[in-house]
Amino acid sequence: MTKEADDSVLRLRLRTIIFGTDTRAGRYFDIALIICIVLSVALVLLQTIGHVQVEYGEQIMMLEWFFTIIFTIEYALRLYCSAARLQYMRSFYGVVDLLSILPSYLELIFPGAHMALLIRVLRLFRIFRVLKLIRYLSEGNMLLRAMKLSGRKIFVFFFSISLLVMVLSTIMYAVEGPENGFTSIPQSMYWTIVTITTVGYGDITPHTALGQAIAALTMLLGYSIIAIPSGIVTAEIHQQMVHRRDLRRCPNCLKTGHDPEAHYCNRCGGELPEDI
Amino acid sequence: MTKEADDSVLRLRLRTIIFGTDTRAGRYFDIALIICIVLSVALVLLQTIGHVQVEYGEQIMMLEWFFTIIFTIEYALRLYCSAARLQYMRSFYGVVDLLSILPSYLELIFPGAHMALLIRVLRLFRIFRVLKLIRYLSEGNMLLRAMKLSGRKIFVFFFSISLLVMVLSTIMYAVEGPENGFTSIPQSMYWTIVTITTVGYGDITPHTALGQAIAALTMLLGYSIIAIPSGIVTAEIHQQMVHRRDLRRCPNCLKTGHDPEAHYCNRCGGELPEDI
Amino acid sequence: MTKEADDSVLRLRLRTIIFGTDTRAGRYFDIALIICIVLSVALVLLQTIGHVQVEYGEQIMMLEWFFTIIFTIEYALRLYCSAARLQYMRSFYGVVDLLSILPSYLELIFPGAHMALLIRVLRLFRIFRVLKLIRYLSEGNMLLRAMKLSGRKIFVFFFSISLLVMVLSTIMYAVEGPENGFTSIPQSMYWTIVTITTVGYGDITPHTALGQAIAALTMLLGYSIIAIPSGIVTAEIHQQMVHRRDLRRCPNCLKTGHDPEAHYCNRCGGELPEDI
Amino acid sequence: MTKEADDSVLRLRLRTIIFGTDTRAGRYFDIALIICIVLSVALVLLQTIGHVQVEYGEQIMMLEWFFTIIFTIEYALRLYCSAARLQYMRSFYGVVDLLSILPSYLELIFPGAHMALLIRVLRLFRIFRVLKLIRYLSEGNMLLRAMKLSGRKIFVFFFSISLLVMVLSTIMYAVEGPENGFTSIPQSMYWTIVTITTVGYGDITPHTALGQAIAALTMLLGYSIIAIPSGIVTAEIHQQMVHRRDLRRCPNCLKTGHDPEAHYCNRCGGELPEDI
Repeated sequence: MTKEADDSVLRLRLRTIIFGTDTRAGRYFDIALIICIVLSVALVLLQTIGHVQVEYGEQIMMLEWFFTIIFTIEYALRLYCSAARLQYMRSFYGVVDLLSILPSYLELIFPGAHMALLIRVLRLFRIFRVLKLIRYLSEGNMLLRAMKLSGRKIFVFFFSISLLVMVLSTIMYAVEGPENGFTSIPQSMYWTIVTITTVGYGDITPHTALGQAIAALTMLLGYSIIAIPSGIVTAEIHQQMVHRRDLRRCPNCLKTGHDPEAHYCNRCGGELPEDI
Repeated sequence: MTKEADDSVLRLRLRTIIFGTDTRAGRYFDIALIICIVLSVALVLLQTIGHVQVEYGEQIMMLEWFFTIIFTIEYALRLYCSAARLQYMRSFYGVVDLLSILPSYLELIFPGAHMALLIRVLRLFRIFRVLKLIRYLSEGNMLLRAMKLSGRKIFVFFFSISLLVMVLSTIMYAVEGPENGFTSIPQSMYWTIVTITTVGYGDITPHTALGQAIAALTMLLGYSIIAIPSGIVTAEIHQQMVHRRDLRRCPNCLKTGHDPEAHYCNRCGGELPEDI
Repeated sequence: MTKEADDSVLRLRLRTIIFGTDTRAGRYFDIALIICIVLSVALVLLQTIGHVQVEYGEQIMMLEWFFTIIFTIEYALRLYCSAARLQYMRSFYGVVDLLSILPSYLELIFPGAHMALLIRVLRLFRIFRVLKLIRYLSEGNMLLRAMKLSGRKIFVFFFSISLLVMVLSTIMYAVEGPENGFTSIPQSMYWTIVTITTVGYGDITPHTALGQAIAALTMLLGYSIIAIPSGIVTAEIHQQMVHRRDLRRCPNCLKTGHDPEAHYCNRCGGELPEDI
Repeated sequence: MTKEADDSVLRLRLRTIIFGTDTRAGRYFDIALIICIVLSVALVLLQTIGHVQVEYGEQIMMLEWFFTIIFTIEYALRLYCSAARLQYMRSFYGVVDLLSILPSYLELIFPGAHMALLIRVLRLFRIFRVLKLIRYLSEGNMLLRAMKLSGRKIFVFFFSISLLVMVLSTIMYAVEGPENGFTSIPQSMYWTIVTITTVGYGDITPHTALGQAIAALTMLLGYSIIAIPSGIVTAEIHQQMVHRRDLRRCPNCLKTGHDPEAHYCNRCGGELPEDI
């Protein structure tokens, strides 16, 4: 066997382990990677807590480099064994994999204290490692499809909300004015969104009677309008569920429309595939 | 060719460009107008931010006049080439187009410092320019129809809410009283609406044990009741979706009831029109 | 004609006007009554605003008595012309009609300054006049039916929420303790309900890291659970709409299942009754 | 009759009373127990209110022991007459029954003042007595089934929310920083969850313009995403209702698909079983 062939066999085997999930080794690799991702993200979170950083700064930096090296090896292996390197590098996962190691190296290159802020932000970029987990989320498809199908309607909805927010903000700015915390229309827009989404921080609140009346109307109006995306998503999910039920087919007699809870075909008694 | 005919041809061509969206020139005109609207609205927003007004006051005023003149020309052209002038002037869009230029001219006519407040409010009226954008929102129809169909039910709902709000406000006013921020029933109604819509600013909160118990009941009660408009809108949207599906018809074999995702008719294979 | 027969004719005529809505006089009576109700309720609201009471106290008291006398006459007439007096008196509307005049007379009977609080509360009871409006709300039936049908499920839901609230409140009380505003379990329950319904006043908030983590879980948990009543109501309304559609029948060919928007039967072209 | 047989008859009779609900004695036993549970839970709540504990401490302790003894007897009887003792002890209800008496005895064993905190927490554990009520909630099944069926989708949803929360928290931490209350990423995550669930306490709020803009986007984004669990639950409940309707069968002619409101079969007129 030539060296090339040998290399090709190794790449194929690695590819099965790294990109696949069917083999035992592939599953172990995935589990190990998930654990590394979760731990390294936890590390980024801990790092921002003042007294943890002071007490365990050194250990954290060491662990940080440990994970960086692991993810670098992972990225190198993926590049090495990928069938379509450029395509992988440009794909969503390729970019996320690169972004999850880049900050550590950039920090090494620009260590100057005068770039402290940039470094701090860069360090936080490591949180994007969490997006590596999306790879393992195969069930999100139905939800994503429902979201995508509703996309146009949701855009129309957001556009209408924007018009409403602008008009309401301007009215509230005129009524309440800067002396009651509505210092500018953008500030007033922040208040309107806080109110219309029913978040209601209370950092800015109307103080005049007229302002409170308009605010009350805004809440009730907003409440009715905000019911719309909920309605859109619900109707789409319902459609998807009916559609999915139609797709669940008995492999024996081809009957469709089985209950999501059914384990056996109610016509021929054949075992049904798992409901996805 | 006489001058009248010439004029008539010009008006027809202008009408195609200004009111239509099918020709290339018409589309460019629309895009240019949308950009002007968005920029002029952004200007109104920026103007209300104190330090921006101080630093760039002159530039803002110049830009303001630039947009006013553009919208004036647009209004004049629409009036000139419209087939039914009076109808256009009285229509929703005609009024919005006029309102978006009027404030600037009024400010010019009444420059007195003693009318500062009126001028400030007038200036803010320019925000209504944003409503010019509705013209370009052709997809909102289904939502608007769902809203209109639910209109009567939503009125009944708001009426019931009002009764509930009044009774609850009076009880809370009696229990908490002016010493805990519930200074009058209207103020108490403001609190009830803030609570029942789950906005919850926290500017007025119950302090007595009984008041807190009633508030907790109000929240749970309100939460159940407020589910109703959401339910109404959801059911209407579902109906609309089923209805729309029935309307999507294969131009070849006339079969209806196609999947929103389908591109080809599942009976004859003919291409389907885009799902609106 | 004897006097009794005369009296009986008068009672019948009055009954048609007061209880009915089909005649012209009946409709005028209803409209006049609705205006009186709205105005008298507005009066109760205004009365609680300090400076209004001080300035217009005398006028308010006079108007108050004006409305009391009107409602007394209404009550007397209803009693007089009702076919089943005792049944009317015991009915929901009979009780509301009595409650809306009682407070004024009670205030007259117990004028002592030492019962100021009782009087103040009694005076507020006049707000229940607003319930007289329910009589004119014929369209609320579908909503009420949906609510009633969901009643049992909503009870189960509230019961489950109560269990959850108790367990969560106890945990938060143990974690945060009196030093962070969770002074007792009932107080903690108030916080839990404020949080779980997403009202979020912010008058009591967790301060320890563990408390904030439990609070975050509470919000997410609560958010999923609180989706249930919304789901129940939506499903019931959907059922009601399908049911109602089945009930809308062409008077000509008896076909059912017409679109809510349809004005004519799509089989025989006969005019359809109004969609209720 | 031998002593064993006598014992066996007694156990059987007790079992019918304690575990069953069909006999009169069984129903009385259940009602008495429910009252005891509710009262003992109310006692735990009252105990945490400072002045109540000071004034009525002795009476509360006596009542506390009264209920502990009652629940001990109940536990002993259940153990005695249960057909499968070990299974009962390990079951959810067996553990809850034990947990509701244990704290009182543990408090007796470890009376030392130096374990005050542990005792306080133990005492609060008595709140779990409330879970004994679940036994009496037979109607929760449909809801629980809808929840269980949606379980996987809800997990996917929570997972997606977690990713979103982490990314948004990191961005807000970078933008606002510790000087505006976002002292660490975990703290920022607390803020993000408070915002995305629309609770909005207002204890931490963005102060920079950029932070407020991102917060506004977070609210709108979160609002759309949070509509999903509501949609999932609604669709599942709708399915369950349709399913349940199919299950309601006329005992006479076996026709299914009856209206939830129907009392008689619409084909043969036979009386229908109660709609569960």
